[in-house]
Amino acid sequence: MTNFQWPVRVYYEDTDAGGVVYYANYLRFFERARTEWMRASGFEQDQLRQQHQLVFAVRSIEVDYLFPARFNQLLLVDTHITQFRGASILFSQQISSTEPDTIQVLCRAHVRIVCINAQSFTPCPIPDFLKSELQKNV
Amino acid sequence: MTNFQWPVRVYYEDTDAGGVVYYANYLRFFERARTEWMRASGFEQDQLRQQHQLVFAVRSIEVDYLFPARFNQLLLVDTHITQFRGASILFSQQISSTEPDTIQVLCRAHVRIVCINAQSFTPCPIPDFLKSELQKNV
Amino acid sequence: MTNFQWPVRVYYEDTDAGGVVYYANYLRFFERARTEWMRASGFEQDQLRQQHQLVFAVRSIEVDYLFPARFNQLLLVDTHITQFRGASILFSQQISSTEPDTIQVLCRAHVRIVCINAQSFTPCPIPDFLKSELQKNV
Amino acid sequence: MTNFQWPVRVYYEDTDAGGVVYYANYLRFFERARTEWMRASGFEQDQLRQQHQLVFAVRSIEVDYLFPARFNQLLLVDTHITQFRGASILFSQQISSTEPDTIQVLCRAHVRIVCINAQSFTPCPIPDFLKSELQKNV
Repeated sequence: MTNFQWPVRVYYEDTDAGGVVYYANYLRFFERARTEWMRASGFEQDQLRQQHQLVFAVRSIEVDYLFPARFNQLLLVDTHITQFRGASILFSQQISSTEPDTIQVLCRAHVRIVCINAQSFTPCPIPDFLKSELQKNV
Repeated sequence: MTNFQWPVRVYYEDTDAGGVVYYANYLRFFERARTEWMRASGFEQDQLRQQHQLVFAVRSIEVDYLFPARFNQLLLVDTHITQFRGASILFSQQISSTEPDTIQVLCRAHVRIVCINAQSFTPCPIPDFLKSELQKNV
Repeated sequence: MTNFQWPVRVYYEDTDAGGVVYYANYLRFFERARTEWMRASGFEQDQLRQQHQLVFAVRSIEVDYLFPARFNQLLLVDTHITQFRGASILFSQQISSTEPDTIQVLCRAHVRIVCINAQSFTPCPIPDFLKSELQKNV
Repeated sequence: MTNFQWPVRVYYEDTDAGGVVYYANYLRFFERARTEWMRASGFEQDQLRQQHQLVFAVRSIEVDYLFPARFNQLLLVDTHITQFRGASILFSQQISSTEPDTIQVLCRAHVRIVCINAQSFTPCPIPDFLKSELQKNV
């Protein structure tokens, strides 16, 4: 099962007064990685929306926070698909620190994405042209 | 079981180009409500940190996104405690829209909070003075 | 000249690892106050958009950061209009801390807002029904 | 005068319901570029803080918003120093779109940064070891 990796640098904007990355901001990192995974598969989400009225919405997420990420760290987001259904995709993602001497998993997530119509916001089956290409990366 | 309610207005900062609240930002709303619940119980988190070296960190979160919240809506965050253990508290939270004619649950979450030492970032038991007061609101 | 006041509580989401409010987030506070000023004048921005295709965009901003705001502080945003032109409004805003014993100005801004068409993103004159009402609060 | 360039991709997290990048978020892009400029000069801000108690704070900013940036665009942040004084640095920055056929300046800023002591939050002269190295990039 293919694994897609995307680097994320921690800037001040991502941290809070506790000195670590604010818990909601890991969800931003996870989404950047999913967006780049889709781009690497050949799909731009703005074009999917304009040409096919397709948008991807998060239906549910589970996150385990193991260790905090800190200002200035370079993180690595691992993304792979664990399930592919009619209108939804289940991702398994994790964020690791990449210090020279140690690699440590900081945060793990399971994310269910639903393909929806951009106007009606109702779920729609993932079209075949998209499915066949994305499944090559599963 | 007591339920704590906190209103949240949706501003442009909370939304994304999909026209709805960005999925990570519901976690900010959930935390505002937990902070205000603690304040309503008589505890200020900056004082807990300065005087007792106590900080609360999110250990895990599960979120179900049912319907999207939109710009300018006035939301209501419901918060109650479902479990109280040595060093952790389990919250059940939900966000509803509050239009005059309909109340609709938009988003549900289960959040585990751990009491940690502000310096060492290691879990520590919730002190009795805090526990006894917070449990009055459970 | 009327002054509109709006309170803002500082949550963890607003701060950074420097222990203070992240510099971009004051702009979110300023916008919340402008939105609430408009609501207090009787206008909801989502309705202005849907019914009149009117959106307000920031054309320029100047911010002076005097003292940092910190986690858990209750701030006060002061907003008043200094100029009212064809398609634009110039706001003067400031953010103060509200500790019991001292009031301190933390941050000052001048913000130019332009009324634009929601589709074309081109400036359009502020309609009379809006102008006459808003000017009552100037 | 040397110009430092840093690319920024626009994700959903950066946009708002107006369909464009939220006005405060350009300040995050500007800071990423300043941080990377400093890193390219050989300085890591977490080390400057730990070893020299040095932090950089924004003292003032002026931003002109010319055209909106949109979801999925790849932007380029240009950064150069226009003034170097005892305790402060004045940056001139701009953000451009980088579509294949057109380059368009979207946003321009002047930012004054002050070197402060991490504990006292009072300004302190930029140390010579830092100044001499940074000025090579001016």
